[in-house]
Amino acid sequence: MGFTEIVKTEEVQLENAILLEGLPGVGNVGKLAATHLIEELNAKKCIEVYSSYFPPQVLIDDDGIVKLVNNELYYYHGKGKTRDLLFLVGEYQGMDSSGQYDLCIKLIELVKQMGVTTIYTLGGYGLGKLVPDPRVLGAATSDEIVKLFKGAGVEFIDGEPGAGIVGASGLLLGLGKLQGIHGGCLMGETSGYMVDPKSASAVLKSLQKLLNIKIDLSELEERAKQFDSITNQLKEMDTGESEDRPDVNYIG
Amino acid sequence: MGFTEIVKTEEVQLENAILLEGLPGVGNVGKLAATHLIEELNAKKCIEVYSSYFPPQVLIDDDGIVKLVNNELYYYHGKGKTRDLLFLVGEYQGMDSSGQYDLCIKLIELVKQMGVTTIYTLGGYGLGKLVPDPRVLGAATSDEIVKLFKGAGVEFIDGEPGAGIVGASGLLLGLGKLQGIHGGCLMGETSGYMVDPKSASAVLKSLQKLLNIKIDLSELEERAKQFDSITNQLKEMDTGESEDRPDVNYIG
Amino acid sequence: MGFTEIVKTEEVQLENAILLEGLPGVGNVGKLAATHLIEELNAKKCIEVYSSYFPPQVLIDDDGIVKLVNNELYYYHGKGKTRDLLFLVGEYQGMDSSGQYDLCIKLIELVKQMGVTTIYTLGGYGLGKLVPDPRVLGAATSDEIVKLFKGAGVEFIDGEPGAGIVGASGLLLGLGKLQGIHGGCLMGETSGYMVDPKSASAVLKSLQKLLNIKIDLSELEERAKQFDSITNQLKEMDTGESEDRPDVNYIG
Amino acid sequence: MGFTEIVKTEEVQLENAILLEGLPGVGNVGKLAATHLIEELNAKKCIEVYSSYFPPQVLIDDDGIVKLVNNELYYYHGKGKTRDLLFLVGEYQGMDSSGQYDLCIKLIELVKQMGVTTIYTLGGYGLGKLVPDPRVLGAATSDEIVKLFKGAGVEFIDGEPGAGIVGASGLLLGLGKLQGIHGGCLMGETSGYMVDPKSASAVLKSLQKLLNIKIDLSELEERAKQFDSITNQLKEMDTGESEDRPDVNYIG
Repeated sequence: MGFTEIVKTEEVQLENAILLEGLPGVGNVGKLAATHLIEELNAKKCIEVYSSYFPPQVLIDDDGIVKLVNNELYYYHGKGKTRDLLFLVGEYQGMDSSGQYDLCIKLIELVKQMGVTTIYTLGGYGLGKLVPDPRVLGAATSDEIVKLFKGAGVEFIDGEPGAGIVGASGLLLGLGKLQGIHGGCLMGETSGYMVDPKSASAVLKSLQKLLNIKIDLSELEERAKQFDSITNQLKEMDTGESEDRPDVNYIG
Repeated sequence: MGFTEIVKTEEVQLENAILLEGLPGVGNVGKLAATHLIEELNAKKCIEVYSSYFPPQVLIDDDGIVKLVNNELYYYHGKGKTRDLLFLVGEYQGMDSSGQYDLCIKLIELVKQMGVTTIYTLGGYGLGKLVPDPRVLGAATSDEIVKLFKGAGVEFIDGEPGAGIVGASGLLLGLGKLQGIHGGCLMGETSGYMVDPKSASAVLKSLQKLLNIKIDLSELEERAKQFDSITNQLKEMDTGESEDRPDVNYIG
Repeated sequence: MGFTEIVKTEEVQLENAILLEGLPGVGNVGKLAATHLIEELNAKKCIEVYSSYFPPQVLIDDDGIVKLVNNELYYYHGKGKTRDLLFLVGEYQGMDSSGQYDLCIKLIELVKQMGVTTIYTLGGYGLGKLVPDPRVLGAATSDEIVKLFKGAGVEFIDGEPGAGIVGASGLLLGLGKLQGIHGGCLMGETSGYMVDPKSASAVLKSLQKLLNIKIDLSELEERAKQFDSITNQLKEMDTGESEDRPDVNYIG
Repeated sequence: MGFTEIVKTEEVQLENAILLEGLPGVGNVGKLAATHLIEELNAKKCIEVYSSYFPPQVLIDDDGIVKLVNNELYYYHGKGKTRDLLFLVGEYQGMDSSGQYDLCIKLIELVKQMGVTTIYTLGGYGLGKLVPDPRVLGAATSDEIVKLFKGAGVEFIDGEPGAGIVGASGLLLGLGKLQGIHGGCLMGETSGYMVDPKSASAVLKSLQKLLNIKIDLSELEERAKQFDSITNQLKEMDTGESEDRPDVNYIG
């Protein structure tokens, strides 16, 4: 077993809370959506998770201060019809299969104690081509959540994604189910070629309905417009040219 | 040590049972044979095995419900001259050497408690060329089982397979022997180029004699015929062409 | 967990000591600087660290005597305004992420007991081109040390190094901070193409001020001159030739 | 930690014994030498070591019986001036660094209990070119053994091998030294291109003197002659041809 240290920066207890996972992945869709929501809701950090399953690396901020790479939890106390929320974000997912499993098992145990009863994981679904109008696809651990997601406009397509869901977005659901915590995954369609704010915006529109919150998407949509403008320019440059596509680095 | 969780979905005790392993491997021969037999005998699931030695992945069924990848055990209570049977199937083998060993050790301990006294592992023997009439090759942990297999038409060829048997099909026998459980491996010859129902059918014909059961092979043989028809078309396309064979992806 | 054995060759207790890490890395800048300082100060070995996170390898000295690869600690009792020093040097860093974490955690625990209260890590910052006049860049775990480093001429540049610090030089700071030990990293600019005594010399000039010691740099500067002479010859050979640069082996 | 099981097939106690390691390596020199000596001395098997650090693989003998890959110890009770001997042989070394360390630590503990007080490791020293007259190079953990080896015609060359000794042949010495067991390594020069009976024969000639035994080398020398004849034919075929040498697979 590797080293994992959970540092509580604030003691927090939630009630019937939803965990929202937004770790890096395809198109960084989940990360963009979760960090946008953290900022909009002004959610507060309460947990730092350090682990030997992350790279042996420190990051440096603009003041020259180093910070060991980690995962972090942010909380938001729900008001009215909005449930308590806990956000899982960070620079990395666990680096190998055993790291993924060990971290997800520890995180589920932790968030269960903190009051989490539902897990929504956020991610991108890479199509390998530009997606002018990304849909949000779903998968869930129970028929109830499938129904709930469908009611929020999330689409379920037979046999999609064919390879299932790989990484924390899948594992938190699969392992959560074994621990009696149900949940679902929201996957924004994305090319997979670059960070995709438009897909993140689509995911957040589904989340608005699911969480009964109003989210200001103007900043993300501004970035999405810039994104569209750039991809249109790229498309024009591409017209009449070879079909050979250069190697693409998936964000992973 | 990694994480491995054994979930009993039904409490089952067998007597003098045979474990039949059919995990994915060359030509998926063992998997095809074991899953066909499970369906024919209407064997029931009793155990799910989850492990960090499998990929961090969930699969999605047609209703949008996620399922963590796993291995599963199915049981069949024998009648008359047929012994009790326990089937080991799944989407993956353990992903690395230590995973293979750890899972096989845990599985042998488990099935021993459940009443297993013999292990038959089912697999494919990749020849790297089309096999019109696949033989079934054998290997075993004792002279008695070699004799038994020979009586069922299984062939033993000096020094074949030269590389021995790699993966669960080998390890369950080798580690089982250390635990006093004897057994053998049935390997259907196969090209290794694709999933091979004809080879699986040949393995099942040997199993019919070894297990004293009658298995309806018509569905597998129908698929084998389609397989032959496709490979014949490929052969015709290939005639007169270069001997250079493109890289072949073994199913592993 | 892997095997790690700490052999004390001399029982040493220090007071308010600084750990100076100089393990192999980019341009071997940290290693050159630390070993030069060990020789200049005539520091003595007190600890050998053996570990399965190092390669399974012995080295052979000129008398034919084998020595298992390891990391070693050397100590120096400070005089006057110079604090006690402890040097960490060796042939290798831990070979993978979990090895890096496990070794750094064990080393921090060990040096804390020996009286270390500050950690300075020494390394190179690879620019991928020749650096006629290398600067020394800094990063630290606290504003106090940033200020201290700036006072010694160490430069802090927004967002540099962009990838943060990877390996022991980063991890000792990040994990040390979690244990309440503060510190900083001194990075000499270097091409990264070869062992770089000039960059090591620059790092030592900063250390002179930080440690209140006078270090004879003549030997390193002699090697740096030879280094300059060779690179100038290479540059002349390169003039007018293709921009294609051959593969470069980073040390490290 | 991985799985390692030590099976005693015979209870054996030795006195002041020498461990002779001959696991697979460059040119399989050590393995050839050790297995030849086992046959010549009619040494008997007493220990089988199974481990998850070996591949998940069974081998199949000519009777169709499977055998899990392992390492084995063979013993020989010395007569007159010949000390007790214990041989370590097998199909594989541990597969990664942590496997190498863990197995060597366990083996040293085991053989110490069995009465081993000295370790000689046997290996090949790959030169990357044909070696008409292979020398035997040495390395040792003490000046006494260096002297002893020199007296048996073993050569010590400054700084050779430059990379030290990698794998079990090095690690058993390095870790043994930490446990107070001294020893040395005999390395027969070899091309590294193929299994090399001539180099093994050279190593055995040194061992004859060191162990005070007479070994019949006729069979190995016969194989060495065939080897010479083949390499001479290859050389003739090579004459006048390109200097480009194809990739060589070192036996590892």
